[in-house]
Amino acid sequence: MRVTFLGTGAAGGVPLYGCDCTACQRAHAHPAYVRRPCSALVETASTRVLLDAGLPDLHTRFAPGSLSAIVLTHYHPDHVQGLLHLRWGVGLKIPVIGPHDAEGCADLYKHPGVLDFQAADKFEPFEVGDLRFTPLPLIHSKPTFGYAVEDAQGHRFAYLTDTQGLPPKTMDWLQQWGRFEVALDCSFPPRPQARGHNDWPQAVSLVQELAAARGWLTHIGHELDAWHMATAAHLPAHIQIARDGLQRLVDDVAP
Amino acid sequence: MRVTFLGTGAAGGVPLYGCDCTACQRAHAHPAYVRRPCSALVETASTRVLLDAGLPDLHTRFAPGSLSAIVLTHYHPDHVQGLLHLRWGVGLKIPVIGPHDAEGCADLYKHPGVLDFQAADKFEPFEVGDLRFTPLPLIHSKPTFGYAVEDAQGHRFAYLTDTQGLPPKTMDWLQQWGRFEVALDCSFPPRPQARGHNDWPQAVSLVQELAAARGWLTHIGHELDAWHMATAAHLPAHIQIARDGLQRLVDDVAP
Repeated sequence: MRVTFLGTGAAGGVPLYGCDCTACQRAHAHPAYVRRPCSALVETASTRVLLDAGLPDLHTRFAPGSLSAIVLTHYHPDHVQGLLHLRWGVGLKIPVIGPHDAEGCADLYKHPGVLDFQAADKFEPFEVGDLRFTPLPLIHSKPTFGYAVEDAQGHRFAYLTDTQGLPPKTMDWLQQWGRFEVALDCSFPPRPQARGHNDWPQAVSLVQELAAARGWLTHIGHELDAWHMATAAHLPAHIQIARDGLQRLVDDVAP
Repeated sequence: MRVTFLGTGAAGGVPLYGCDCTACQRAHAHPAYVRRPCSALVETASTRVLLDAGLPDLHTRFAPGSLSAIVLTHYHPDHVQGLLHLRWGVGLKIPVIGPHDAEGCADLYKHPGVLDFQAADKFEPFEVGDLRFTPLPLIHSKPTFGYAVEDAQGHRFAYLTDTQGLPPKTMDWLQQWGRFEVALDCSFPPRPQARGHNDWPQAVSLVQELAAARGWLTHIGHELDAWHMATAAHLPAHIQIARDGLQRLVDDVAP
């Protein structure tokens, strides 16, 4: 199973429009530091699933028919805004699987076009090709799922964004899942009152509490990047800040 | 006054995702035929107004502070989706002026960020720098204004999209406005039951009924492009199909 971080940014991304902090200046100067809307691609030889749809250029990135499904964590615009254009396609249907959310986003439900919206249930696995997804409730301002993804060989990857902390049942489920790698919301530098998202110490301690084999911090805000540039804060060797375009072959064999 | 057609496409644009009609094939092969979300830039030496905000890359197209205001025709996603990202900027305020629409789009009103939403009233002119805008009610499935734009020298340009036909009062107002150029919704090839947008014969006859000095057809769907490729349907010399990137210096002097 190959995971590609297509976007690793918090809402607004990096550089943030109008900002000249050190992180935003760096991203203007060096495109490698740009952070786009948070999303990832999970692939096997026969299956290709897009995790979240906030990138505005989905229609040019993905040839028609090349996506097995789109799996959504939640319906905030920075995670679904790319669907507003993509839906107007013709000649195909794309399953779009996410949490039940009566609101959705804008008029997506009213005019779904080529999108086939389906609601998943918490802890009820569903399959897309040879990938199995288990929806795990997260803690956010809209109904939100993380996903535990497992391929046919038992390689395991958890994608947990957007969230602040983890519900006890989600923590329990993951702690009994065996060996896995995790991508986790880490929007903010250390702050006393983070809201809706993990800050750095919370994200780092969650990866450790999960006993994940590897951890990737994502959904990064410009303040976290600037803070990290200034402090070079230490991370355990198995935890890394993700970058747009980073690819990871999840090849740890399950115990 | 300089008008630049930044996007001339109907919702979904050209090429339409998954479509292989002659117009979509041509747009894939030749980027000059691509049609992006319908929008335009109106500029004088000192003022720069974006008409509609459906382009997803507003944050890279327009340097912070370079827009005097954004003026919206209505809140359908293909006309406002670029705001979902742009709003998260910092250090500036952008006036966003449009019709009163209690819904807006997605959570734009709830989290406006740098956007300062303001409702205009029909037929009540407002000024942005040295441009005067008069909102003109149109006929569409959401509250929608066209705009009559006039610069300090009396050059006049009307931007009328999205609409199917024109309300009598809007027609009367424009017929008494004097000499002007017009950009007009022309989404469809001839069809008996066009909905929400003008088809070709209706758009062409409206330009003539308005007695506009020049007419630019915009908000073009792929079916219209394909139909026009097949038929090369005649247009009066003063009416033209707009293209993305087309610039027009509106320099006719008012009578």
